[in-house]
Amino acid sequence: MKNDIKRIALLTGGGDCPGLNAVIRAITRTAILQYGYEVFGYKFGYRGLYNNDLTPLTLESVSGILHRGGTILYSSNKDNLFDYTVEENGIKVKRDVSDVGVENLKKAEIDALVVIGGDGTLTSARDFARKGVNVIGVPKTIDNDLACTDVTFGFNTAIDIATEGLDRLHTTAESHHRIMILEVMGRTAGWIALQSGIAGSADVILIPEIPYDINKIVEKVKEREKRGKLFSIIVVAEGAKPKNGDVVVQKIVEDSPDPIRLGGIGNKLAADLEKLIPTHEVRNTVLGHLQRGGNTCTYDRILSTRYGVKAVQLIAEGKFGNMVALKGNKITYASLENVIGKIKNVSVDDELIEVARKIGTSFGD
Amino acid sequence: MKNDIKRIALLTGGGDCPGLNAVIRAITRTAILQYGYEVFGYKFGYRGLYNNDLTPLTLESVSGILHRGGTILYSSNKDNLFDYTVEENGIKVKRDVSDVGVENLKKAEIDALVVIGGDGTLTSARDFARKGVNVIGVPKTIDNDLACTDVTFGFNTAIDIATEGLDRLHTTAESHHRIMILEVMGRTAGWIALQSGIAGSADVILIPEIPYDINKIVEKVKEREKRGKLFSIIVVAEGAKPKNGDVVVQKIVEDSPDPIRLGGIGNKLAADLEKLIPTHEVRNTVLGHLQRGGNTCTYDRILSTRYGVKAVQLIAEGKFGNMVALKGNKITYASLENVIGKIKNVSVDDELIEVARKIGTSFGD
Amino acid sequence: MKNDIKRIALLTGGGDCPGLNAVIRAITRTAILQYGYEVFGYKFGYRGLYNNDLTPLTLESVSGILHRGGTILYSSNKDNLFDYTVEENGIKVKRDVSDVGVENLKKAEIDALVVIGGDGTLTSARDFARKGVNVIGVPKTIDNDLACTDVTFGFNTAIDIATEGLDRLHTTAESHHRIMILEVMGRTAGWIALQSGIAGSADVILIPEIPYDINKIVEKVKEREKRGKLFSIIVVAEGAKPKNGDVVVQKIVEDSPDPIRLGGIGNKLAADLEKLIPTHEVRNTVLGHLQRGGNTCTYDRILSTRYGVKAVQLIAEGKFGNMVALKGNKITYASLENVIGKIKNVSVDDELIEVARKIGTSFGD
Amino acid sequence: MKNDIKRIALLTGGGDCPGLNAVIRAITRTAILQYGYEVFGYKFGYRGLYNNDLTPLTLESVSGILHRGGTILYSSNKDNLFDYTVEENGIKVKRDVSDVGVENLKKAEIDALVVIGGDGTLTSARDFARKGVNVIGVPKTIDNDLACTDVTFGFNTAIDIATEGLDRLHTTAESHHRIMILEVMGRTAGWIALQSGIAGSADVILIPEIPYDINKIVEKVKEREKRGKLFSIIVVAEGAKPKNGDVVVQKIVEDSPDPIRLGGIGNKLAADLEKLIPTHEVRNTVLGHLQRGGNTCTYDRILSTRYGVKAVQLIAEGKFGNMVALKGNKITYASLENVIGKIKNVSVDDELIEVARKIGTSFGD
Repeated sequence: MKNDIKRIALLTGGGDCPGLNAVIRAITRTAILQYGYEVFGYKFGYRGLYNNDLTPLTLESVSGILHRGGTILYSSNKDNLFDYTVEENGIKVKRDVSDVGVENLKKAEIDALVVIGGDGTLTSARDFARKGVNVIGVPKTIDNDLACTDVTFGFNTAIDIATEGLDRLHTTAESHHRIMILEVMGRTAGWIALQSGIAGSADVILIPEIPYDINKIVEKVKEREKRGKLFSIIVVAEGAKPKNGDVVVQKIVEDSPDPIRLGGIGNKLAADLEKLIPTHEVRNTVLGHLQRGGNTCTYDRILSTRYGVKAVQLIAEGKFGNMVALKGNKITYASLENVIGKIKNVSVDDELIEVARKIGTSFGD
Repeated sequence: MKNDIKRIALLTGGGDCPGLNAVIRAITRTAILQYGYEVFGYKFGYRGLYNNDLTPLTLESVSGILHRGGTILYSSNKDNLFDYTVEENGIKVKRDVSDVGVENLKKAEIDALVVIGGDGTLTSARDFARKGVNVIGVPKTIDNDLACTDVTFGFNTAIDIATEGLDRLHTTAESHHRIMILEVMGRTAGWIALQSGIAGSADVILIPEIPYDINKIVEKVKEREKRGKLFSIIVVAEGAKPKNGDVVVQKIVEDSPDPIRLGGIGNKLAADLEKLIPTHEVRNTVLGHLQRGGNTCTYDRILSTRYGVKAVQLIAEGKFGNMVALKGNKITYASLENVIGKIKNVSVDDELIEVARKIGTSFGD
Repeated sequence: MKNDIKRIALLTGGGDCPGLNAVIRAITRTAILQYGYEVFGYKFGYRGLYNNDLTPLTLESVSGILHRGGTILYSSNKDNLFDYTVEENGIKVKRDVSDVGVENLKKAEIDALVVIGGDGTLTSARDFARKGVNVIGVPKTIDNDLACTDVTFGFNTAIDIATEGLDRLHTTAESHHRIMILEVMGRTAGWIALQSGIAGSADVILIPEIPYDINKIVEKVKEREKRGKLFSIIVVAEGAKPKNGDVVVQKIVEDSPDPIRLGGIGNKLAADLEKLIPTHEVRNTVLGHLQRGGNTCTYDRILSTRYGVKAVQLIAEGKFGNMVALKGNKITYASLENVIGKIKNVSVDDELIEVARKIGTSFGD
Repeated sequence: MKNDIKRIALLTGGGDCPGLNAVIRAITRTAILQYGYEVFGYKFGYRGLYNNDLTPLTLESVSGILHRGGTILYSSNKDNLFDYTVEENGIKVKRDVSDVGVENLKKAEIDALVVIGGDGTLTSARDFARKGVNVIGVPKTIDNDLACTDVTFGFNTAIDIATEGLDRLHTTAESHHRIMILEVMGRTAGWIALQSGIAGSADVILIPEIPYDINKIVEKVKEREKRGKLFSIIVVAEGAKPKNGDVVVQKIVEDSPDPIRLGGIGNKLAADLEKLIPTHEVRNTVLGHLQRGGNTCTYDRILSTRYGVKAVQLIAEGKFGNMVALKGNKITYASLENVIGKIKNVSVDDELIEVARKIGTSFGD
């Protein structure tokens, strides 16, 4: 089987993430140096596969990119060839154009395709595998919420940046005796808030998996005051939600014509807390795009390199339809069929939750 | 004159700013080691002066704080003893309680007071000087917009952080061919946007001093596209404003029930640009409190130390009623009477404006 | 058993390491907040135990130390109460004074002792456990070479700094077409060189576990030259050694009156390579103490916190004589009897070695 | 005059320095966008001028380099066309081949040459100016010791790194009660040691301009001990020297067969202090190449950009034979005739020396 592979291609899909370039580099170097494959990249994810936008990847073209965030292959966020927007008679319609992708791979004599992306991108990867394409997946989410792998690259860079943000907010909180809130990524899973909250010494960590009671947060702030700590630091995942009965926040959401523009849960939380604790000023900062760009951290450079090398090994061994994965300390793989559509949430009895509680952190519950 | 001084006090007022602790340390060390003064700090700015909340400052208490943002003396943002909120018969009224401050200084036998703060804090400093208090001012603004000094501490730390933010946004902008906006501080003066924009390779810099025409920004983005640059980076000072005729933005502001919550000019700009350039996604990030906390940069540690040493020298020389200042490379001083109420704006023909224009940066005009 | 514990003490031994303060904080907070223990620290490691140099640890005294390198309890490198230097009749002699330690614990009514340190410090911990002291160990080595645990805190901070060092050397190497060497810690185990070498894009990684042949390094440099890469980056663990037949290096060592002063293997390597590749300048940089100080990285803050919490849980459960440990993603523990005297070396077929080889890295063999 | 210029070239000489790429970028962009010049670069400094190794510089080729250390044009350290090593009849001889350079400029129709370098590189620039070449100089030294300009780029990046190094050493010094030494660049001028020493809270700063007395350093360490500070931090410029009578150090130097290999003044200082203060361990770290690589700091990015823009303006105005310079806050220029062969040393009564002394820093004198 090994001997049949001559040319491989890769593409990156979904939001950018530190480590994408490190994966591209590791795949390209391993494929060329160890297996003598020719390597190509489709630009802009699946859109490039549809448009046959193919570029050769060489030792030279992947030189100097190990540490750089982003992706030299560019990415598109939403393009899905199984439900793709095309123009017919001047009207935009959705069509399954995946056969064009399959055809393009054949025409370009690509023997195997490495797809680097999150749940959406990997769903298409699985569907191409079902159509007989030799696909290998590489998992990418900053949120670290992909099933079947313990850690995805980009996540550790994100918590580094979020932790640095919390460090910065501490000096202002202390000087002014304020409540400072940092809103971080995590729509459905609270991993970034949880880990940066522990590392950044947050007093309160709010995550989607544990709906919060605003009164519990007020209690925590007041308990700190009694110990002479007149400031508090809160880290909140963008997907954190109040418990049902928590009318104060809900009212604000209802009043708003455009809740997304209001800047998310952090702003609502700030407004609520200022009402309930009038003695304190409260400020929210939305970390936003700062947590997904810039240089890739040490951990993610190594993990991405391991993923890239493993992806080529799976190709050489003909183990298609799989995604590379990290289990404990070991690089392994899992079937794409098992990965898709599952979210790896923070369990309410996760060891890190317990650790945070033991050192006195509140989850607002 | 020198021999009369035995005890000095200092206080910090206004928003926190990297370098405050470095000033406190330099004053304390110089006063104790060179002049044998006793040193005290009023906590929470002028409020501490009113409440006689005085703490001794020693070599030990200022040890290890040189690099730390914030202020170990705490700060209050708004307290002004010449217009202070007090309760009389259960009702809050505004009163001039500055005599209490003068009295407290006398009772504590404080021979000179060093006031570290921005325009508001220094206005009171001047007013205390007029009442005969031996006052020395130390200028503090992150925005660098204080008159009579070339640079204030905190500013260089802020542009370091803003520049790092722009670096981070670059990788995402490139990978997704987006327009990325970073909104930085600067309500009336655009120094942070200007300098971080040059250092962070912004394509467009928007500052309060140069009202922008949204169509010029669109032109710039399209001109870049022609050269194959499918992304653009914009840095915008929070006080930047469109030219009068710029209806698109104004409409958004009118429509909004709560313009402050909309997150400022960056969000408006993003909304406008998405309408005018539908082919591009546009994202805004508000740097916010991240740019005023954390560790103090090298430049600000040195400048703050120079200011602190000079402040004590002025006390020793009896040159009260002055503010320490930087002119070119030299530490000097200026009368508080000349400092107050003036804003040091970016001149439209400032050398840095010209430099930015020459390398192709647009100011949206 | 749980109810018997009222007072616990901790001490830190051996070289300082980022994360020590995070462990101290987590132990103190967990012990006070969850179990109501009183907490004390012996200053300067075992010397403090001998001298009864005991200080209370409170929520206040461990506040603000999570991110700071070093140890607020101070450390001593060599003191071992089972072989302690004391003066008798004016002469320094070595004595077993461990009974004094046991006695001091009893007098201070310390019910359990947490010992944070490396192999040497934990050897004494085991010996105190054998004498019936309720001991819990927490593993600490920057080199990550301690048995029975996958990762020790401090290690990830060290590889962050080493990787940043390699990033820095790249720009100089490229500009001048030089061979740049970075010498990092690792006397017997090459983990730091291996991981920072992968993350920092080193062309050659030299570790104690794989003796190098200088001619293979020359080959690698020349192979790069053929591809137009006129510079090379080498990371070398301080304990790396040439193969037996490698006379060039040995000769230099013989010639030298004081090999330690010569600055270690990096300098020898530079001298050898300059002789063998006269067309290239070669420069060595010794990272030294820079890799063990400063702020603790995100990963180490979290790991240290988990270790600290687990240590107190083991006390509460009466599981003495054990060391907390990380296995895969799980915090667990191992008997101190099994930990001591073993070094966790890099296996020559470690996955990371294989990964590095696959992307083209040379180990000089 | 302006209209005569059509093509300009630039070259970088001497050791690499953060900011070189920023200068190259600013020159290229300004020349193309503002003046419509064609821009070229000679690779490897003057060697490229001799070999006619010319590459076009375009908006594209200078894209993305603003923040990167090093030089995309490469540099050679020693090549001087006025005293150049050539082979004649198989023998290497030194010859004045500057006419070849002049001829190559003519053949390539280069109307003006921008030379970016330090004292050596600019000496040749002056000599080419004397031969009628249209030369503009841009000053580059990490040491900041070039005459006629207040600040050179690279210097502020270097002091950032040195300051961070001192921050790191603090935690180890404190934990172990050690004397930690950081040896930084500065063979004849002590600017890096002076400024990083103030910013990094060094207790002792040793610079070439102030010969030190080892006993004064011992005094300082002991004075700190009395105040309960059992550690000390020393920053030493590589060119620092003991006073004549300081036999201890001299003896070590005499004993050594190879003083350069001994690692410089920091190692000698460590050896001396360990002898004189046997109660303290002393450790030296040589910052070395770490202080000249990596990313360019904010300040240097801006300064380099200003220098680059000014260099093109001088070309447009026909003001050849000059070097761009910073005076106070203003970009200006100075005749190359006045720059060469002078070193800008730290004056013993420099304000920064006085500032450091006032806060209690010792200069060992």
